[in-house]
Amino acid sequence: MIRFKNGTVLTLNNSCEPQSCEVWTEGDKIAFVGNPTDEQLKNTAFEREIDLEGDLLMPSFKNAHTHSAMTFLRSYADDLPLHDWLHKQVFPMEAKLTGEDVYWFTKLAILEYLSSGITASFDMYFELDDYVKANVESGFRTVLCGAVSGERENAKVLEERYLKYNGLKHPLISMQLGFHAEYTASFGLMEDIAALAEKYKAPVSMHSSETADEVWGCRERYGKTPTELFESLGLYNYGGAAFHCVHLTKEDEMILAARGVWAVTNPCSNSKLSSGVAQVAHMMDMGINMAIGTDGAASNNALDMFREMYLLSMLQKIEEMDAAAMPAEDVIKMACTGSALAMGLTDCDCIAPGKQADLLVIDLKKPNMQPLNNTVKNLVYSGSKQNVRLTMCAGNILYENGVYRIGEDEQRIYARCNELADSLKAR
Amino acid sequence: MIRFKNGTVLTLNNSCEPQSCEVWTEGDKIAFVGNPTDEQLKNTAFEREIDLEGDLLMPSFKNAHTHSAMTFLRSYADDLPLHDWLHKQVFPMEAKLTGEDVYWFTKLAILEYLSSGITASFDMYFELDDYVKANVESGFRTVLCGAVSGERENAKVLEERYLKYNGLKHPLISMQLGFHAEYTASFGLMEDIAALAEKYKAPVSMHSSETADEVWGCRERYGKTPTELFESLGLYNYGGAAFHCVHLTKEDEMILAARGVWAVTNPCSNSKLSSGVAQVAHMMDMGINMAIGTDGAASNNALDMFREMYLLSMLQKIEEMDAAAMPAEDVIKMACTGSALAMGLTDCDCIAPGKQADLLVIDLKKPNMQPLNNTVKNLVYSGSKQNVRLTMCAGNILYENGVYRIGEDEQRIYARCNELADSLKAR
Repeated sequence: MIRFKNGTVLTLNNSCEPQSCEVWTEGDKIAFVGNPTDEQLKNTAFEREIDLEGDLLMPSFKNAHTHSAMTFLRSYADDLPLHDWLHKQVFPMEAKLTGEDVYWFTKLAILEYLSSGITASFDMYFELDDYVKANVESGFRTVLCGAVSGERENAKVLEERYLKYNGLKHPLISMQLGFHAEYTASFGLMEDIAALAEKYKAPVSMHSSETADEVWGCRERYGKTPTELFESLGLYNYGGAAFHCVHLTKEDEMILAARGVWAVTNPCSNSKLSSGVAQVAHMMDMGINMAIGTDGAASNNALDMFREMYLLSMLQKIEEMDAAAMPAEDVIKMACTGSALAMGLTDCDCIAPGKQADLLVIDLKKPNMQPLNNTVKNLVYSGSKQNVRLTMCAGNILYENGVYRIGEDEQRIYARCNELADSLKAR
Repeated sequence: MIRFKNGTVLTLNNSCEPQSCEVWTEGDKIAFVGNPTDEQLKNTAFEREIDLEGDLLMPSFKNAHTHSAMTFLRSYADDLPLHDWLHKQVFPMEAKLTGEDVYWFTKLAILEYLSSGITASFDMYFELDDYVKANVESGFRTVLCGAVSGERENAKVLEERYLKYNGLKHPLISMQLGFHAEYTASFGLMEDIAALAEKYKAPVSMHSSETADEVWGCRERYGKTPTELFESLGLYNYGGAAFHCVHLTKEDEMILAARGVWAVTNPCSNSKLSSGVAQVAHMMDMGINMAIGTDGAASNNALDMFREMYLLSMLQKIEEMDAAAMPAEDVIKMACTGSALAMGLTDCDCIAPGKQADLLVIDLKKPNMQPLNNTVKNLVYSGSKQNVRLTMCAGNILYENGVYRIGEDEQRIYARCNELADSLKAR
């Protein structure tokens, strides 16, 4: 049992007000939230007592859309037009990636996630065995998102992977059905995946409506928007997550709302690639479930939920021409709770007894958090990685006071990643 | 003499490429930049040798528009419409501020500046004696910007302050002529300040064209935009800095370019208050001098140049619908060099012998800076306060590895600021 005491707790369990109480964890779960009696304290043996010294404990952030191993392309090809970036830089480099590359660059991403208070990722990439190994070794939680695309893969491959990774029954690993995007999938592939959704009564997730070009192309091919097409195929019959959702029609929004599909917004990536601004405040008004992701480091370039939350709110205030748009409380709930639910992690959405012990401690004794006028506003409007004192995933402290505990020295990860990045350029 | 060795240096002295060399500082100045000979090393006594271990040394950031003491209002009144924020929250609270408040809340701002790599501020506020005391005690550089406004102050007051603070001849303190804004100044006050500009051959700085309402009001009163009005009065005859510049006409832009006036952009504040997006890429094309400021914590809410640089670039990429807009190199130069020149700090603009030793060391051994594909892109697109290893102002190390050296314990500053913030609400 680990005891967190002498701080405040933002449970996000139907409350967005920090409260003065304790949190105890036992194994991978939250065991107690409240103010213990002397009797309780006397009868409990703690392996560690952590004095929060007035700091804030809250649910960790979850990253509802990413490609972790793309850290190898961070700052490799920036400030380029989108087409050149993708076709001349990203695709040729990705074609050379090996399982070993994916393993090390995923570990690099995990370091960055932890220092930003993120404990889970909804990840769409390839070389999954190596990817899973990097996560399991690090103690990091991940939900694989099927990434089948093009002609080399088919729904059978997706089903095999789905059964294999869910069959592991590993507490940190699960998989959801998915495919890359309409523009990289054949009609037949999408039909086959819809049949899998029906067979397993399972949600399906994919990139959708990231750019205006993508929507235009889909209309040319099918006379439908991506959302309309997916709906017509039955892909959303059991829900799912649609990544990006920058260019939606009113009809698209009604489909997502009716199906309970999670719209996962990626404000940093959409801005950096000049894809546009997702109408998040409007989508919330339409009753659409919202979550946040970082996307990959090639297009972001950081894997930092503080920056993601901040940009999300700023863009909405500008787009809506209303300083009151997208208040901090909505943003925090999206990053902690919405993003967990979008990837099916229904036990990681808040601080409550029985939930997974996926949490973080925010250091309030930094200038950007002072004075203590309003901690939740501070988190979104002035918070940064500087404030992450501790990150816990499944009851294990993986990051504390700048020190990582992921079973691998971070300097070795940096060194190996630089070697591999250099060798990739030469391959 | 302090020696920085075994790292790379981004001098911004006509180069935006990091180079492998050393930097030595002597007193408040940079004494040497280059690769020393054995002879030079033998003949030099160092009081301290700092092993950069591969990290990056660069010019510090300068904050070209702020109201430091407004930290007392951080997260006090967020997510409100602009009018309510200003008239119901900010103005009533500011009216209660004392010199002691300004002193402590300025110290809080300085802590935040240093942790973000900022070593100088162009600050517009009141209770200047207390403000100056806080800066001098901390070893922080500031340029006061005249803030006269309304009816209780006049150009005579401004001139007295201008002579008084420049008369101190303190190496860290100077003052420039200025006033709050057109909408808080009488025509006579602006005429009188233009006469001062002529008398001292000095630049004049002010808020300008922050909101559409402001420009509309000025047109109603004078039949001119603020920029046209200031130009017609001769206020820009010796240059100056115009804070915000969100809503400019083509004619305004031509005036700023012709006069060499610095347009100081404040992307975080303009976004949070929903004022709009300054057309920075376009202004640069027009040949306007550009600088960056954080504005005050009441409207930002952080005093963090990494966030400011990032948002600036993202907003331009979206506005221009071009992922290649506002490349990282231009942003870095704006934050380090442009902002120094905008406030008249011509000795603090780059790393070169004889310049002031205002610099920072970036910790590259953090996941957001890896792999080392491109350090300058990393600074803007994934950099954060987490990467600030050391901040030096005028040759003094004021922040290093999370430890402040400003002659005051930061916990005492937090405690005092919380007491004063609480008492302000009750006054």
